[in-house]
Amino acid sequence: MANITKKVSWSSRADESAAAGEATPLLNGSEQPQHSRQLSGGGSIFQIGRLSTVDLEEEITSEEDSLRGRPKEIPHNEKLLSLKYESLDYDNIENQLFLEEERRMSYMGFRCLEISRWVVCGLIGFLTGLIACFIDIVVEQLAGIKYQVVKENIEKFTEAGGLSISLILWAVLNFTFVMVGAIIVAFFEPIAAGSGIPQIKCYLNGVKIPRVVRLKTLVIKVCGVICSVVGGLAVGKEGPMIHSGAVVAAGVSQGRSTSLKRDFKIFEYFRRDTEKRDFVSAGAAAGVSAAFGAPVGGVLFSLEEGASFWNQMLTWRIFFASMISTFTLNFFLSIYHANPGDLSNPGLINFGRFEGDSVTYNLYEIPLFIAMGAIGGLLGALFNVLNYWLTIFRIRYVHRPCLQVMEAMLVAAVTATVSFTMIYFSNDCQPLGPESTEEYPLQVPNTSHISVTQLGIITIFRWLVVETYEIIMARCGYIGPCHSDDGLFCADGEYNSMATAFFNTPERSVRSLFHNQPGTYNPLTLGLFTLTYFFLACWTYGLAVSAGVFIPSLLIGAAWGRLCGILLIWADPGKYALIGAAAQLGGIVRMTLSLTVIMVEATGNVTYGLPIMLVLMTAKIVGDYFEEGLYDIHIKLQSVPFLHWEAPATSHWLTAREVMSSPVTCLNRIEKVGTIVDILSNTSTNHNGFPVVVQPAKLCGLILRSQLIVLLKHKVFVELARSRLTRRKLQLKDFRDAYPRFPPIQSIHVSQDERECMMDLTEFMNPTPYTVPQETSLPRVFKLFRALGLRHLVVVDDENRVVGLVTRKDLARYHLGKHGLEELQLAQT
Amino acid sequence: MANITKKVSWSSRADESAAAGEATPLLNGSEQPQHSRQLSGGGSIFQIGRLSTVDLEEEITSEEDSLRGRPKEIPHNEKLLSLKYESLDYDNIENQLFLEEERRMSYMGFRCLEISRWVVCGLIGFLTGLIACFIDIVVEQLAGIKYQVVKENIEKFTEAGGLSISLILWAVLNFTFVMVGAIIVAFFEPIAAGSGIPQIKCYLNGVKIPRVVRLKTLVIKVCGVICSVVGGLAVGKEGPMIHSGAVVAAGVSQGRSTSLKRDFKIFEYFRRDTEKRDFVSAGAAAGVSAAFGAPVGGVLFSLEEGASFWNQMLTWRIFFASMISTFTLNFFLSIYHANPGDLSNPGLINFGRFEGDSVTYNLYEIPLFIAMGAIGGLLGALFNVLNYWLTIFRIRYVHRPCLQVMEAMLVAAVTATVSFTMIYFSNDCQPLGPESTEEYPLQVPNTSHISVTQLGIITIFRWLVVETYEIIMARCGYIGPCHSDDGLFCADGEYNSMATAFFNTPERSVRSLFHNQPGTYNPLTLGLFTLTYFFLACWTYGLAVSAGVFIPSLLIGAAWGRLCGILLIWADPGKYALIGAAAQLGGIVRMTLSLTVIMVEATGNVTYGLPIMLVLMTAKIVGDYFEEGLYDIHIKLQSVPFLHWEAPATSHWLTAREVMSSPVTCLNRIEKVGTIVDILSNTSTNHNGFPVVVQPAKLCGLILRSQLIVLLKHKVFVELARSRLTRRKLQLKDFRDAYPRFPPIQSIHVSQDERECMMDLTEFMNPTPYTVPQETSLPRVFKLFRALGLRHLVVVDDENRVVGLVTRKDLARYHLGKHGLEELQLAQT
Repeated sequence: MANITKKVSWSSRADESAAAGEATPLLNGSEQPQHSRQLSGGGSIFQIGRLSTVDLEEEITSEEDSLRGRPKEIPHNEKLLSLKYESLDYDNIENQLFLEEERRMSYMGFRCLEISRWVVCGLIGFLTGLIACFIDIVVEQLAGIKYQVVKENIEKFTEAGGLSISLILWAVLNFTFVMVGAIIVAFFEPIAAGSGIPQIKCYLNGVKIPRVVRLKTLVIKVCGVICSVVGGLAVGKEGPMIHSGAVVAAGVSQGRSTSLKRDFKIFEYFRRDTEKRDFVSAGAAAGVSAAFGAPVGGVLFSLEEGASFWNQMLTWRIFFASMISTFTLNFFLSIYHANPGDLSNPGLINFGRFEGDSVTYNLYEIPLFIAMGAIGGLLGALFNVLNYWLTIFRIRYVHRPCLQVMEAMLVAAVTATVSFTMIYFSNDCQPLGPESTEEYPLQVPNTSHISVTQLGIITIFRWLVVETYEIIMARCGYIGPCHSDDGLFCADGEYNSMATAFFNTPERSVRSLFHNQPGTYNPLTLGLFTLTYFFLACWTYGLAVSAGVFIPSLLIGAAWGRLCGILLIWADPGKYALIGAAAQLGGIVRMTLSLTVIMVEATGNVTYGLPIMLVLMTAKIVGDYFEEGLYDIHIKLQSVPFLHWEAPATSHWLTAREVMSSPVTCLNRIEKVGTIVDILSNTSTNHNGFPVVVQPAKLCGLILRSQLIVLLKHKVFVELARSRLTRRKLQLKDFRDAYPRFPPIQSIHVSQDERECMMDLTEFMNPTPYTVPQETSLPRVFKLFRALGLRHLVVVDDENRVVGLVTRKDLARYHLGKHGLEELQLAQT
Repeated sequence: MANITKKVSWSSRADESAAAGEATPLLNGSEQPQHSRQLSGGGSIFQIGRLSTVDLEEEITSEEDSLRGRPKEIPHNEKLLSLKYESLDYDNIENQLFLEEERRMSYMGFRCLEISRWVVCGLIGFLTGLIACFIDIVVEQLAGIKYQVVKENIEKFTEAGGLSISLILWAVLNFTFVMVGAIIVAFFEPIAAGSGIPQIKCYLNGVKIPRVVRLKTLVIKVCGVICSVVGGLAVGKEGPMIHSGAVVAAGVSQGRSTSLKRDFKIFEYFRRDTEKRDFVSAGAAAGVSAAFGAPVGGVLFSLEEGASFWNQMLTWRIFFASMISTFTLNFFLSIYHANPGDLSNPGLINFGRFEGDSVTYNLYEIPLFIAMGAIGGLLGALFNVLNYWLTIFRIRYVHRPCLQVMEAMLVAAVTATVSFTMIYFSNDCQPLGPESTEEYPLQVPNTSHISVTQLGIITIFRWLVVETYEIIMARCGYIGPCHSDDGLFCADGEYNSMATAFFNTPERSVRSLFHNQPGTYNPLTLGLFTLTYFFLACWTYGLAVSAGVFIPSLLIGAAWGRLCGILLIWADPGKYALIGAAAQLGGIVRMTLSLTVIMVEATGNVTYGLPIMLVLMTAKIVGDYFEEGLYDIHIKLQSVPFLHWEAPATSHWLTAREVMSSPVTCLNRIEKVGTIVDILSNTSTNHNGFPVVVQPAKLCGLILRSQLIVLLKHKVFVELARSRLTRRKLQLKDFRDAYPRFPPIQSIHVSQDERECMMDLTEFMNPTPYTVPQETSLPRVFKLFRALGLRHLVVVDDENRVVGLVTRKDLARYHLGKHGLEELQLAQT
């Protein structure tokens, strides 16, 4: 049993001590089996449990030995844990400098800090709201221009018979937007791809995702989402708002922009991980709030997805940011829509109001809702499985930026083609009258000019498709039921409902599905629409474009939900569309509490609260049986060391002794500069936390790489301090100025003379790091680590000597797979 | 500096070691100043901070010495911390027995546990819903009978001129109900008084309030609340639902009733503080959910008021319990109201639906709302200050049960008298037509038969009051403006709106204030009503009756809010009534996030979400400036060691060394039975946690009093184990069976021979208690303690030797007063 008998070989000279700081457990050769061993599941644990406690340790040893002989499975991508992700430190470094500052601060000082926290949250909310407003207005303007251009073109060329030019123009416009969106994302900031929710989830969980909260990311994200929405992809602009809010928060709270090299010299106190992470939660909440007009939902999103420690004051500040965000968006959009001061339509998406007699449900409908929840769970799991395979494929084969751009353009082309095909084969004509749109006057002009566009396009498309189709069909000797000429085109005063479903913005389509009169949609139209949009949305998510999955999910769900409603003749289809939308979204993203509140706030009605809850819970339970949530899949595929809420249930037999990394590189309280430089320069280990010890081997503190770098940069050496007594003492400010982009050790020049100097770490180390004894069980270690948001946890023996260090990766390594407890492999990539 | 230089004098023989386990810091004589010292505030800390770190300790010493010389303030009641409250232990005791059990359990075993947790939550929700339903129906029936009796009496005696008999009958009925309610509470279960929310807050915070979750408490609570509501006091039945839900949860989750001596042998795994507290949060949420039809609000209430660690799975279970609770109540009430299956009116209180044109607000109204929030905060603070004085008075002078009953009856009498007086002087007649009540058909019959009752009663009351009033006025030589005869009585087909406001159930009055047509209420009526109801409600809260403060607060706020709305001529008064209600309630109880959601869910409308949030925040900020929230005042007056969210801001200069209790009574790993019995029998200390040490003085575990008692009861002695090898080994089940009412040490007989035996604690102690070094700052200790819900935290030196023990009371002692950091005194009562 190697790692029980192994004793720490710490040393006063760190270059003598063997490597291993933050979870770099010596992946070379003989040590590897220890970390890649496949732990067996319930069965064998059961067997261990039946033995007496005395024999337990030996049993584990032999258990482990027998496991080593087993053939190792070839690791899937999700069975790895990447070492490239660092952790955030939610634990304050309470060193002497910090304590001095805190002690120096008066009660009023703390009050001022508290007030500035509120100010920052207000600013975060305001800016997030403005960004949402900007995205909304730009998307609307660009889409308007696009349709205008195409429409004029059709009118110009209709007589000349050159309608194909219009089609090509339309496609080219879409291609161009998607291409621009894909290029800026793929070439300039790949982290801006997708909805950004998985990344923010990781950030709030405590994983430092590189470049995720930078200004550049925000700019690319905003431009990217505008391009992909205007480009007609099956995406929404809501998800990216959450990421945008988080970036705004990270920027505003620091009072400076490292990218722009501007430092406003404010909010300097907040320049550390603890405070920053709090503000980022507020930013994420503000983003949700702006996207869905759901301030409470935003708070719950932040808490459900991120925060582990529920702090009342923090929650209120998050709430405040959310409120301000909704309010700002609402206010500016009301001015834009020339109706200033009307604040009753918050959010980028508004599901419209459910009013009148339809706003009720009956007891016998509950089982139906639950059944729909189950369908949503199944379809969601299917969506996730397909997207999982697709993502694996993308990771393996589509990793070059130009390929990613091409894939995005391919999807844009397919989206357009499929839309046309669907419209072509649809014969679902509905009267285009005021009654179907009376509740949404904004829809009327759009519907009408779209329908002109579409009629023109269809004219040429008919030719293209019919020709192709007839050739194919003739070859196969099959005449399909759709291939009839009646009803391909609608008479004047009618419109094609399939076209409406495809050509409207997804937000409007969702609203139409919720609220249009019964009889507006043909069941076949809805079925086909669900099918095609499902695959389109699934293909689209994960492309190198900024785009969210919320709205497509809602749209798919609303379509099949309305279909269910139509099939249940007696029912109001709009209500079922809402339930279906909730079921589908829940089945894909697997949120419950926050999603319930978001849905309730977005519909502006709490009557359906209970059914929505039931549906979301059912969808989650059914979906979880087959596959994880979409965001979790993507987090796993990125090999992020994500810490779940609790340690795996069957992990009680593991102790800190087994999970910790050891031996640990320790430093002396007064250490030679050369030793420190050597340790920091060791690229094979790249440790971040170093326990500080005094002879004989007692733990007396913990110091971080970033602190050592600042100390080296300022040459805080004992000898120099003696010679230059008037020299400015290093302050907390110096650490804050360097945060968060600490220079690499290579950029710091230390002369040969200086290497012989000594550094006194006493003042800078955290003198009271949290510790656990070696016998502590994994769940206990996990709880301490997770609840306090730690980055390093020192394992000590009963003499208070350092024997190991537990980091995020040591804990994230263990997870509950299908065969019981499994251990992920660590990889450098 | 006594407690810095003091070293631990632990010993292998506990009877040699001095006292102090769980926060009993030797209150006799010379040691007392250490605990009653008045720490100085921001100013002096500021001064310390400016010194260099080296001088810090001396400075604190001299600081403290200088403080000792100051004249001590005579302690107010809220400046004490009671020692009678024990803590709950949210930390699992991971001893060998527990780990063995966990390791023995298969993955399926954990799945089953998880499923049974969901089942328990479902049951909690169901039973809580049933109780809410029971209370609602019984109150309605009894109130109906009461009015029927009085009405018949009036009709019988009207010709005979004996109307005074009716008045007396009515008053007697009210008195009787209130008396019964007060007697059962004051004599049988005083903990059932009030709303129970402060008690549940404490429980969720981790304080074991004696008898708070017993079956007897539930029965008394339910009967008490029925009596006080039917007795016509200014109370609501919503607050007590939260307590009821918590009791149900504590009962159901344990699978047995200790009071009824029934053990169903199920859910035995949940018989420990950790699990029980989780379920109690679910119960409290289910209570809120049933009371207001607000499942999400319930979850947020539980989290805001109680839980510190946000666990996703736990939150979902709480949510599930809330849903089931609302659903059950809704379902059974729909059957009761002969409208089965209509589930759209959840909750005991329903504010009615805001619909139509009125459901909007404009930008210029925001400042008005904020101003109303400020008024709410002011009025709330006034309410709290008055109630605070009243409670101090009650604690000092009204502590005998019979006095409490008499006070309750006095309040009942005054409530009736004031109501009559108000009605008498009111001349606000409104047409009694279908238009004012059309939205609430249930109100019509009640209003009409109340108005008959009331007209009859007023007839006699007029005589009584006019006589008295005229005599008083004549004496004072003052003729008031109200003393005019016109309009005291309303014509046929009209009704007195003041009477309606007073005679309706508070829930109905709130709804009328929200929804009645503009012009229904006279401003003067509303003003007078606000004034009188304000004082009545203030006087009523804290009486020895089970009653909540939510509904009276809402009613007061709705009244002055509507008044504001009427004064702002252009506005819809109903909307302002809602805002006023939110402001007043927020000003009194100071909840924000959960209250927003509760209000939104109860009004069934999210449009007013943003204004309600703004108002609640303003009310909280303004109110907090003057006085704490009502529940916090009551918690403080009970001297409960309540842990807030964070350590006081200016407490960084305190370390574990200063806050810990020392010396600590330690036990050896193998300890003499006689020693253990002596330690446990020492009534002057009454410790609960004992660090276990091995020579030389190293910490190796922690054992609780309750565990030792079980060990003694089962005579788990080393000598006996040797002699009887076949003897059943002590199992976790034995500890669970004894939970939570462990027998006192006095009930366990240990013979003189047995006293010489030895006990091996190795298997039973928690081998890995959390520890901190002595230099850890108070905020850091606090964070660890609060985040993990600890009961004992061992302080060790750098050799891992026990030097002290930090308990809840050691941390709760420090709070931020008006003059900076203050230290509360510990008291035995």
